[in-house]
Amino acid sequence: MTALTALKEASVSPRALTPRQLARRERIQAATFSMLARHGGEALSMKMIAQTAGVAERTLFNIYGSKDGLFASSARERSEETIAHVHQATLAMAEDCGGMAFFHALPRALADKTFEAPALARAFAPILVAHAGLVGMPEIYETYAGHALQRLQGNGLLSECDIALLSRLVCMSTVSTIILWAKHQIEDDALETQLRLAICQVLLPHAQAPLDAELRDEARRCIATLAQTSIGA
Amino acid sequence: MTALTALKEASVSPRALTPRQLARRERIQAATFSMLARHGGEALSMKMIAQTAGVAERTLFNIYGSKDGLFASSARERSEETIAHVHQATLAMAEDCGGMAFFHALPRALADKTFEAPALARAFAPILVAHAGLVGMPEIYETYAGHALQRLQGNGLLSECDIALLSRLVCMSTVSTIILWAKHQIEDDALETQLRLAICQVLLPHAQAPLDAELRDEARRCIATLAQTSIGA
Repeated sequence: MTALTALKEASVSPRALTPRQLARRERIQAATFSMLARHGGEALSMKMIAQTAGVAERTLFNIYGSKDGLFASSARERSEETIAHVHQATLAMAEDCGGMAFFHALPRALADKTFEAPALARAFAPILVAHAGLVGMPEIYETYAGHALQRLQGNGLLSECDIALLSRLVCMSTVSTIILWAKHQIEDDALETQLRLAICQVLLPHAQAPLDAELRDEARRCIATLAQTSIGA
Repeated sequence: MTALTALKEASVSPRALTPRQLARRERIQAATFSMLARHGGEALSMKMIAQTAGVAERTLFNIYGSKDGLFASSARERSEETIAHVHQATLAMAEDCGGMAFFHALPRALADKTFEAPALARAFAPILVAHAGLVGMPEIYETYAGHALQRLQGNGLLSECDIALLSRLVCMSTVSTIILWAKHQIEDDALETQLRLAICQVLLPHAQAPLDAELRDEARRCIATLAQTSIGA
């Protein structure tokens, strides 16, 4: 609870911070990212991060409450940035495929972000699950995937269903896929395809024509692609 | 590699062992199960297991090669027993729903096994992924789920596809679901439904009439059930 309260303070809008506080937050995030990528979460202490960021260890505890709170806040920032960017980019598209543009773009964006810093992504993967409540991934998906699902439903491409629940199922599928990748159960060259397949699988049961046929074809294409990559070998 | 070689020896057919060796193996497995449930894998040493089983620590290393090898062998035994039992039970059914009986029965069997010893299942979950190669889950699924998929295909209910790959996708989905449960991201009362949904999702893209409609209905029913349980709250 303390960590959660602290995290809420930590995720206060940047505009509410003074320039000095903002610069400090950025130093802390950068130090957390670089130290996590190098050492992993287990071996890392608040003291090490504080030293790298050039802040007092006490400051870290004041802002984030705990190591878990700091890691969760960093994981949240990184994930939300990626997903919000996909949301923005696909919103701006004139022809939005009735809401599917978000889901078409998401697998590539998540895979790109993962390979931008693979060691960091591996360090974050267990945090996404172990501290899911702190990270708030389901809420992030409810906001952005939920918006896309609503458009699909509004366009008659998705049958009547619980949008919040479906958003959470998309979240669980993509997080699971990234965890399997982090544990070397999905090869690098298969990650984007596995993410694409996972999303098709979640949407398919509720898809209405012509989306159902489109998703079915895409899922089959993904499976055919996977048969060519390492998983099929 | 040493662990893998040792593991193969460890999984030698029980009939090739003397009654004394067999009794020793059973003591080792029982000690591993009870100690894992109590302490988790991290805190547990080969020495602790050897003492509980009443064998020399050296014997454990001779048979299993390493702690990972011992845990993987135990995880494999427990998983394969469950899945092979579902296979046997559904094979014997006169009306086999063209191969679906296995997939209808699997979610319940996996959930029952999980709740039979939840602490043990939680301790095994990370091993299933971290040492997937040693545990050999994909091979277990290729054997048993693969057989059911072949029947479905033989009965024209599944389109032409790579059975081995589809078996592995079923494996990945069920393992992911159990990991999310182990990490408290899926509530107890939702586990069986989530497993059922995961299997529907994997099969749906390749399902032919009338299986496609059946799977779609079942997936929707699962989602409606989940909306009633904790995930929808």
